[in-house]
Amino acid sequence: MAPRYAPSLRSCLAPTLLLLQLAFIVIFYFKTEIQIHVRAHGDSFSDVYPMFQDVNVMLILGFGFLSTFLVRYGFSASAFTLLVAVVATQWAIILNGIETFRGKIRIDLRSLIDAEMCTASVLISIGAVLGRTNPVQLILISLLEVSGFILNKWVLQTWLKVQLLNSIMMLHIFGTFFGLMLTWTMYRKGSEQGFEKEKFDQRSGLFSMLGTLFLWMFWPTFNSVLVDDRIPGRKLGAVCSTYLALAVSAVAAAAMSVLSSPKGKLNLIHMQQCILAGGVAVSVAISAVYQPWVAMTIGLTATVVSTVGHRYLKTQMLLAFQCHDTCTVLSTHGLPGLLGWLIRLILEVQELDDHTTAIRFAVFHICALLATIAISLSMGIITGLLLKWDFWRPPQENKCYDDQAFWEFPHLAKRQ
Amino acid sequence: MAPRYAPSLRSCLAPTLLLLQLAFIVIFYFKTEIQIHVRAHGDSFSDVYPMFQDVNVMLILGFGFLSTFLVRYGFSASAFTLLVAVVATQWAIILNGIETFRGKIRIDLRSLIDAEMCTASVLISIGAVLGRTNPVQLILISLLEVSGFILNKWVLQTWLKVQLLNSIMMLHIFGTFFGLMLTWTMYRKGSEQGFEKEKFDQRSGLFSMLGTLFLWMFWPTFNSVLVDDRIPGRKLGAVCSTYLALAVSAVAAAAMSVLSSPKGKLNLIHMQQCILAGGVAVSVAISAVYQPWVAMTIGLTATVVSTVGHRYLKTQMLLAFQCHDTCTVLSTHGLPGLLGWLIRLILEVQELDDHTTAIRFAVFHICALLATIAISLSMGIITGLLLKWDFWRPPQENKCYDDQAFWEFPHLAKRQ
Amino acid sequence: MAPRYAPSLRSCLAPTLLLLQLAFIVIFYFKTEIQIHVRAHGDSFSDVYPMFQDVNVMLILGFGFLSTFLVRYGFSASAFTLLVAVVATQWAIILNGIETFRGKIRIDLRSLIDAEMCTASVLISIGAVLGRTNPVQLILISLLEVSGFILNKWVLQTWLKVQLLNSIMMLHIFGTFFGLMLTWTMYRKGSEQGFEKEKFDQRSGLFSMLGTLFLWMFWPTFNSVLVDDRIPGRKLGAVCSTYLALAVSAVAAAAMSVLSSPKGKLNLIHMQQCILAGGVAVSVAISAVYQPWVAMTIGLTATVVSTVGHRYLKTQMLLAFQCHDTCTVLSTHGLPGLLGWLIRLILEVQELDDHTTAIRFAVFHICALLATIAISLSMGIITGLLLKWDFWRPPQENKCYDDQAFWEFPHLAKRQ
Repeated sequence: MAPRYAPSLRSCLAPTLLLLQLAFIVIFYFKTEIQIHVRAHGDSFSDVYPMFQDVNVMLILGFGFLSTFLVRYGFSASAFTLLVAVVATQWAIILNGIETFRGKIRIDLRSLIDAEMCTASVLISIGAVLGRTNPVQLILISLLEVSGFILNKWVLQTWLKVQLLNSIMMLHIFGTFFGLMLTWTMYRKGSEQGFEKEKFDQRSGLFSMLGTLFLWMFWPTFNSVLVDDRIPGRKLGAVCSTYLALAVSAVAAAAMSVLSSPKGKLNLIHMQQCILAGGVAVSVAISAVYQPWVAMTIGLTATVVSTVGHRYLKTQMLLAFQCHDTCTVLSTHGLPGLLGWLIRLILEVQELDDHTTAIRFAVFHICALLATIAISLSMGIITGLLLKWDFWRPPQENKCYDDQAFWEFPHLAKRQ
Repeated sequence: MAPRYAPSLRSCLAPTLLLLQLAFIVIFYFKTEIQIHVRAHGDSFSDVYPMFQDVNVMLILGFGFLSTFLVRYGFSASAFTLLVAVVATQWAIILNGIETFRGKIRIDLRSLIDAEMCTASVLISIGAVLGRTNPVQLILISLLEVSGFILNKWVLQTWLKVQLLNSIMMLHIFGTFFGLMLTWTMYRKGSEQGFEKEKFDQRSGLFSMLGTLFLWMFWPTFNSVLVDDRIPGRKLGAVCSTYLALAVSAVAAAAMSVLSSPKGKLNLIHMQQCILAGGVAVSVAISAVYQPWVAMTIGLTATVVSTVGHRYLKTQMLLAFQCHDTCTVLSTHGLPGLLGWLIRLILEVQELDDHTTAIRFAVFHICALLATIAISLSMGIITGLLLKWDFWRPPQENKCYDDQAFWEFPHLAKRQ
Repeated sequence: MAPRYAPSLRSCLAPTLLLLQLAFIVIFYFKTEIQIHVRAHGDSFSDVYPMFQDVNVMLILGFGFLSTFLVRYGFSASAFTLLVAVVATQWAIILNGIETFRGKIRIDLRSLIDAEMCTASVLISIGAVLGRTNPVQLILISLLEVSGFILNKWVLQTWLKVQLLNSIMMLHIFGTFFGLMLTWTMYRKGSEQGFEKEKFDQRSGLFSMLGTLFLWMFWPTFNSVLVDDRIPGRKLGAVCSTYLALAVSAVAAAAMSVLSSPKGKLNLIHMQQCILAGGVAVSVAISAVYQPWVAMTIGLTATVVSTVGHRYLKTQMLLAFQCHDTCTVLSTHGLPGLLGWLIRLILEVQELDDHTTAIRFAVFHICALLATIAISLSMGIITGLLLKWDFWRPPQENKCYDDQAFWEFPHLAKRQ
């Protein structure tokens, strides 16, 4: 029933995108300018630019191709990720700027990187609803989630005195719970039986491997780019720790995938998502990780937790909680993120000699988590309810996970 | 009729390549040396090297995989792009050096980058004739086009006092018109009905997406690498402007693709080529773009123009002007390039208070465009007529857009 | 007979990986710390980091996707490369550190890069046995080969006064002979007839092209990252020389592939492996290459030698020496490496005026090669004999080159 979708896309997607983009341009016209003066304490352009490009590659190529494992959803996965990323980044530049400046927003590489970090939380969330949403819904998600994430960042920084680095790294936890709430509110009856097209094959598995490897290779940049380099060795420490944690994750993911498989074989998709677990956990704990062995232990633990989540939790979430989590973001980002949060708590408390300071830190740290979860859950539910509205015309059951709902295939047309 | 091509390739391609390469080595022996002394005003090695690699990735991987969308032409598209790129770059190093030095040509990262920029114009042109040429013809095109482009650069710089940056950025316009003349002179009767293999599928669409994304992600490097960093903030401005223009292009390309589709669906190939339009337009206008919103407006306009070109102009060009433009370079590089030229004219004139200076600038600016178009058209026609010569044995009609004309397929051999 | 492998993988792979990883973490706990003090003469973090990432991309993505050309072995090729790389790198960090420090091993970017270079020799070797080994065997190979390579490095540096750069660049020769000995000792009767699945198709050829291009593009980084930048222009010279050598290789590979083909057509896999030959040869000769034309001549010669090796030597090696060399590492890395060694000998001797010093250098240089070959051959045979032990349960004949021996395919399960 392709014709039913066509008018929906045309009448909905095109005006939404064009109006939104015009609004962004108007805001940029009144509110932004390029940062001309190099900051006194800042890094030079050529120091930061390669790291900015690494993060850019992770968002566009890494996340984009990570989700191409769905056998008939490759076009949508890569192109919609791009679309969501550019909308979310523009919106995040505006909101981040409004938050910190009264006058004009100064745009430099650092503000682009900050905005891309906010975008990362959106890309995590849409992994949970991938294949069962249309692009208009994805644009709405990206706008609302960026707003929620920046609200959360502001709450953490202002009320709980969390440092910028630590508040941004909550993106894994925020993105996961937001995504889970989306998939819970948008749950459709009949999803328990699974969708016919929700599977992978040799081709789509390799494309997905490509995206995963870009995320895996550049994760050290992701974790270190916001680390302050004025303390000597902190940035190097973040890079080496993340690198080693990811190495351990790759080893552990292979071992755990075999151990937990009914046939004793490896599962490519599970392995792909679990080799990132170490990076996620170190992300959240980054400001407390100083020694390589700590990072490696975090990597090992995170991967074990993540693999167990992939094998057993995905089905449970679907049947018991009606959360149909396409890319298993709970196990890929949620559980390792929570683990990283816990490990940071332990490490920081252990280091503080003073009993009172330690308790004070623990209270603030726990409050930061609770605030993040509360804001992500409530924003997720609000967004989900909004998206359930029939006006957006989500794809029908038999058009889920299928590029044909949205894309022209000229070669098919010719054969007719 | 494979045997007919085999002797042609063997007797033509191998000697051409080997003799050409030996000639290059001899020229390099007599005329070049590595630049040992670091230039006083220059950037250090480690500042430029990452940007050099980005440009390298764009040429080899970006352009190479961009054109793999043809379903049976993936091997040729990626490997011939590599071949053309390395031949053109070596030739451009020599010609660029002869132009500027009497003594030995000093090779450093900057001379490699300059040469790669000249190569980019060749890679644009061959997009227009892709699939209907053999590699010997492509090598000839690359030699003649690099010569023409460097001649054009020299004319613009010497006679019209155009800055190096601006003369190089004419590559989009030069490459397009050169390519169009190639495809016009080499036109074959019967092309109106279309070729059976000129289509894409899910696999080739994703490979093409990969190449496009690499071009898209690294375009800020392409636009900023030649910008002089002695004026503070100019390089940062070029990066941020291009980044934002590309973001707007991605949004607008999705909207326009849906709007202009008969079924209201997205078209992956159109979208891929249109998301680059913003980058192209900003390229040509880069020395006049200071504000983000200007770049974003350029991005929006360029994408609208480019999409309209893709949907309606491609067929018109074929039927009315007998230009069979495989990769639609007119809409991807030509129209956005011309738009960028126009916007630079408007922006620069607007900024000049003095009426006389403004008119003077406008005259020079218009002459620069006319010179570029004149040289590219005439060089394109000369090259095209040379290539029409039956000696080169272009692929037959039914072997067009097909790897089997040029490549061994051992797995097919085995099945026999 | 999938069930036969399943228990083997589960009972062997998972415990091996987990125990090994735990052992590594314990060693890292006792012996390592992050290098906090920036070295006085060293490069800054932001100078080295982009080069480190290039090398990382080459190992993980380049080598990983290079070997995905086998039509049904893509998952294994990319994922096992990752697994081997992370195990070998961790082990190399430990061994490299033990070699140079009594106290704690200081980890910084340089030590990661050194370790990744050792890993490169392992990735070369496993190319020779790819498809006929299981992951447990690959892990064993990586541990033993890293040990052998670091022993070799130590012998060359301590006894033969070879510089670190030159001893590391022997990795191509070491990896090749180690790999050949592996495939010779593990030879199976019946391999002469070839395996049904040892072939490539359009899809796997393009994935392999992607990996090759990443190796090709970043090879200048690989050759220059260890070059001392205190002598002005040496690093730039290494980059430009390698870049030009690779360009010549690409041209020559296309010419030679056509010339040596029975049908006068190009062969993608041959061409892919031969375009790297110039880079390999320049690697080994890097400390003596100062002029672009020298590098280009090396590139041309290396590619000719390599192509001849690919067309004629592969079958000879199989039939006469019982070496079944899946990725033809002898022609890709071995012959160009030996050529680079020879050219370095000639260049260095030519430059020395003093007759005695020249002979002295030649003797040491020849001894370095003989030592490398001796150590690689003996370690290769030892490793090969160990792997022949039936305990490891290598894949059966009909499961060679097939992902199904190791990987779950949910979509196949569903169709049943």
